[in-house]
Amino acid sequence: MVEKPKLSEVLAWSGPQIADFLSGIYEHSSWVAQELVEQSDGSTSCKLDGISTIGELANAMKQIVDDSSTEQKLALLRAHPDLAAKVESMRSLTTSSQEEQSSAGLQSLTPEERQKFTTLNTAYKTKFQFPFILAVRNATKYTVLAAMEGRIQNASHVEMASALTQVHKIAWMRLLAAIDVDNRKGFLTCHVLDTANGCPAANMRIHLHRLSPSDKAGFIDEFFTNNDGRLPNGPALKGDDPFIVGTYEWTFFVADYFASKGTFVSGVPFLDQVPLRFGLDDPDEHYHVPLLVSPWSYSTYRGS
Amino acid sequence: MVEKPKLSEVLAWSGPQIADFLSGIYEHSSWVAQELVEQSDGSTSCKLDGISTIGELANAMKQIVDDSSTEQKLALLRAHPDLAAKVESMRSLTTSSQEEQSSAGLQSLTPEERQKFTTLNTAYKTKFQFPFILAVRNATKYTVLAAMEGRIQNASHVEMASALTQVHKIAWMRLLAAIDVDNRKGFLTCHVLDTANGCPAANMRIHLHRLSPSDKAGFIDEFFTNNDGRLPNGPALKGDDPFIVGTYEWTFFVADYFASKGTFVSGVPFLDQVPLRFGLDDPDEHYHVPLLVSPWSYSTYRGS
Amino acid sequence: MVEKPKLSEVLAWSGPQIADFLSGIYEHSSWVAQELVEQSDGSTSCKLDGISTIGELANAMKQIVDDSSTEQKLALLRAHPDLAAKVESMRSLTTSSQEEQSSAGLQSLTPEERQKFTTLNTAYKTKFQFPFILAVRNATKYTVLAAMEGRIQNASHVEMASALTQVHKIAWMRLLAAIDVDNRKGFLTCHVLDTANGCPAANMRIHLHRLSPSDKAGFIDEFFTNNDGRLPNGPALKGDDPFIVGTYEWTFFVADYFASKGTFVSGVPFLDQVPLRFGLDDPDEHYHVPLLVSPWSYSTYRGS
Amino acid sequence: MVEKPKLSEVLAWSGPQIADFLSGIYEHSSWVAQELVEQSDGSTSCKLDGISTIGELANAMKQIVDDSSTEQKLALLRAHPDLAAKVESMRSLTTSSQEEQSSAGLQSLTPEERQKFTTLNTAYKTKFQFPFILAVRNATKYTVLAAMEGRIQNASHVEMASALTQVHKIAWMRLLAAIDVDNRKGFLTCHVLDTANGCPAANMRIHLHRLSPSDKAGFIDEFFTNNDGRLPNGPALKGDDPFIVGTYEWTFFVADYFASKGTFVSGVPFLDQVPLRFGLDDPDEHYHVPLLVSPWSYSTYRGS
Repeated sequence: MVEKPKLSEVLAWSGPQIADFLSGIYEHSSWVAQELVEQSDGSTSCKLDGISTIGELANAMKQIVDDSSTEQKLALLRAHPDLAAKVESMRSLTTSSQEEQSSAGLQSLTPEERQKFTTLNTAYKTKFQFPFILAVRNATKYTVLAAMEGRIQNASHVEMASALTQVHKIAWMRLLAAIDVDNRKGFLTCHVLDTANGCPAANMRIHLHRLSPSDKAGFIDEFFTNNDGRLPNGPALKGDDPFIVGTYEWTFFVADYFASKGTFVSGVPFLDQVPLRFGLDDPDEHYHVPLLVSPWSYSTYRGS
Repeated sequence: MVEKPKLSEVLAWSGPQIADFLSGIYEHSSWVAQELVEQSDGSTSCKLDGISTIGELANAMKQIVDDSSTEQKLALLRAHPDLAAKVESMRSLTTSSQEEQSSAGLQSLTPEERQKFTTLNTAYKTKFQFPFILAVRNATKYTVLAAMEGRIQNASHVEMASALTQVHKIAWMRLLAAIDVDNRKGFLTCHVLDTANGCPAANMRIHLHRLSPSDKAGFIDEFFTNNDGRLPNGPALKGDDPFIVGTYEWTFFVADYFASKGTFVSGVPFLDQVPLRFGLDDPDEHYHVPLLVSPWSYSTYRGS
Repeated sequence: MVEKPKLSEVLAWSGPQIADFLSGIYEHSSWVAQELVEQSDGSTSCKLDGISTIGELANAMKQIVDDSSTEQKLALLRAHPDLAAKVESMRSLTTSSQEEQSSAGLQSLTPEERQKFTTLNTAYKTKFQFPFILAVRNATKYTVLAAMEGRIQNASHVEMASALTQVHKIAWMRLLAAIDVDNRKGFLTCHVLDTANGCPAANMRIHLHRLSPSDKAGFIDEFFTNNDGRLPNGPALKGDDPFIVGTYEWTFFVADYFASKGTFVSGVPFLDQVPLRFGLDDPDEHYHVPLLVSPWSYSTYRGS
Repeated sequence: MVEKPKLSEVLAWSGPQIADFLSGIYEHSSWVAQELVEQSDGSTSCKLDGISTIGELANAMKQIVDDSSTEQKLALLRAHPDLAAKVESMRSLTTSSQEEQSSAGLQSLTPEERQKFTTLNTAYKTKFQFPFILAVRNATKYTVLAAMEGRIQNASHVEMASALTQVHKIAWMRLLAAIDVDNRKGFLTCHVLDTANGCPAANMRIHLHRLSPSDKAGFIDEFFTNNDGRLPNGPALKGDDPFIVGTYEWTFFVADYFASKGTFVSGVPFLDQVPLRFGLDDPDEHYHVPLLVSPWSYSTYRGS
């Protein structure tokens, strides 16, 4: 496996090297990466100036697409493979696209579903004049069919915005797959509030696991909340090694906490070990993932 | 393994048989079961009249304890084993009590924790004049120590109420372990609301698993919500076989749903497969366990 | 004041009458109403067939706009008045537009704010080639300026979708203002769950007020929830007279409820009389507006 | 109106002065205040040592009650007036008790309700051997009757704990009414999270009003949230003057915020101006009252 270059290394390369490296981020549309490093008159672009995070790099490329003409946008959309052809051959796709627009689900279509898929796919192309694009890793056939059924009803100007959102999302996943983000600024924090008693949940036991990527999966750490209901020693994850883009899970030992507080919980508690499963998508952002909990209800949200 | 009698069978027994069978539900306090079937003058009690569910049976026994004198209540509390002695020998406990007040955690106390435990346990008995009782299945040492530290600060009248709550909970767990509840009236329902778009979440995929008891654990079923965000064919669990007291988990395919709606979710979605883990404690009750969800937040509660 | 025709009356008119009546729903774009009743070859359209609610009428007109060409959409957007000119003169607007895009706030701009407004407004028109449109009744200057600052950063295809959303919303408000919706199908329901005790909140007192429109404002009714936490006699509002588009407020007597349950609330309760203020926008829809509440937290949502 | 002494002044008084001043905090039970300043052997108590807030003073007095014998507790409960007698004459109550246990509601009982009230009140006294006590300011007849119906079903040990909770709450309200708390440590903060977009709600307009006490009621301030969704200049209330025990209301301009973000809200928005009404009960505590909001749902809680 070829090692991924670090972001700081990529940013130190020459313009042509960068443009070459990023040429496949937008499907068959190397002009986006080209414009990132070079102006239309051939002089050097300053669009890389001031960029230090992968989010800023993604935004700079997105901005180029967003500022392009309607014709360029349509060309970009049309450069994407047709899902039907993909299901047939799996050959015409760039390797990246195979991963992001998994056809696994589509290969298990029943004859009836295949008929529905083909009809929708053809109608979609006829109506919008570009192929159906869906940026969902490991999308199942249910998701693909439901998305097709929903989006084919959109007005053309709405669906164009929708399709470009998918394209930007694919670009983001490709950037993360291509570049090793060092000096990550992101961190993960937590907070537990006891909504039955109106106070922070002190001394609650919490476990943190990483669920994906699979080669980094496993138990990470155990915490006991402090008197303010927060982790006792700062962020649960911080820095290059632990703060990895992927899926994580808190486990909150809720029944134990309420038992120790004297709040009634039933024999088989309605809430005992409460899992919160969440994704970290940007290696440079702060993710605050709290729990508001009573013995009979809870909620969570992306906080700040 | 001896087969458990059905509730309908138990209720058909003679008074003395019932009193004998239920004599251990309240620790070393067979007078509770005795009073259930017999009045103080020796005549038959009518406290079993009208009882048809295990919840009603538990309430009838609880009522006897609650209506007893302060002296009787104290005697009941004092009939419970001392946790310290239990940790030493594991011999003086009734078998049931060993299961409900697991000492597993207490057997792994560090010397420092053991010192703390002994000090708290002694201080507790001195202050309240009855042993510390905690009805938490598989309680860890953390829970036991935290509960001791919290409850020792209670006023005596508050702690008496707290200890009796534990005793009633132990009685409930013993009843469920002793009796096979047939003709269960309980059922499990679900509802998913999309709080980003202000509508029911239609066509969301949901899986249901049973996590415990272990011999009944496994995948149960897959559902797709209808246009009102509910399960398409009534309750997910209903009737004797499937509606088993234990721990369950919904898995909601949230990112797929929002992708098909065109609502933006990130590359690694903040919420993708959302697990809700919950306990069913009473075989005759309705459990409504809904999900309110946006791509960035969710909540659940025991509904109705 | 001219009396508004009923929806059923309008739908019984001739095609030309309907087209004339609805000609101003989309700003200076009578072709939308025209196309509703007539095909491009002059023959009668069937787009009114099957319509029986104002929501269906609005959707039919929206569909015509959504299916039109990019040039027609741009022409529709450009038919809207320039906010700057509006602030200057208040004369070039159709009467409807004056109400929906209130310039009240803009007339109180400080010199500094006026400078900012003019700069943003000019930049917006230059970038997108159509005027800034914001469908917010009684919009304050804060909202207008914040919306301008946010939307000017959009890509052109995103902002086109955003502007058309505003246009459809204006059309909806104009339809509601022009037509008297009889035989309303909408109704309002409630449900209160006690998340501290994990059960429906029975016997909670609730008041319902209408806050707007002002000529219909006032106290509507008092309710006490039943054992399932619901209103005892069906919907709180149902039928033509009470189910009026406007703003409403539930008041839940939460501290009283918890006091009667024996759940602790403080001297000045954190939650006492809890107001939920919400809008009913569509006379034919079901609005379910529940409360999930503990003494220290609550939530609400548009349910179903 | 007699001016209230400051807490710092009270704490500087002699023991007998303090005992005299606090003699009525617990109904007809001056021994509580006596024990606060004097030990049973007549020597000075150190229970006032280290007290600097009204919460600590209340806790010290509560501790004396909680540590007293069952007989003393029963005597304290029995020192409270009988509600029935109160309704008859309004004469036997201490002035403080009249305010805390308002009989306003009870004076408007219908004959049928009066019958029910008398029956419940007599049954309560017969069962528990002390009068019914309910610490709810301005309690309505509904609350009183519902509380009686609920609590009469309690076991005696449970109801004793419940009644003492009411007594402690009355003591707290009397302390706050008797003493002017200077050098308040409390403060009020806010935070707004946008759960539709998964980010802090920046630049949202918020108003704060005080609703009670009536002589201090009115508009307090307007805020615009910063980029982290918080108040821009620290706490909304802090210090002796503004941080007054009473009822407050945030108003969040939610529809304006979402309009400026481009998130769809309907013509009459489901959520427009969202009121959160909450009580500040302790002049020395931090109250964090946040809003989590989408265009179709919101929640709040006492945070930290």
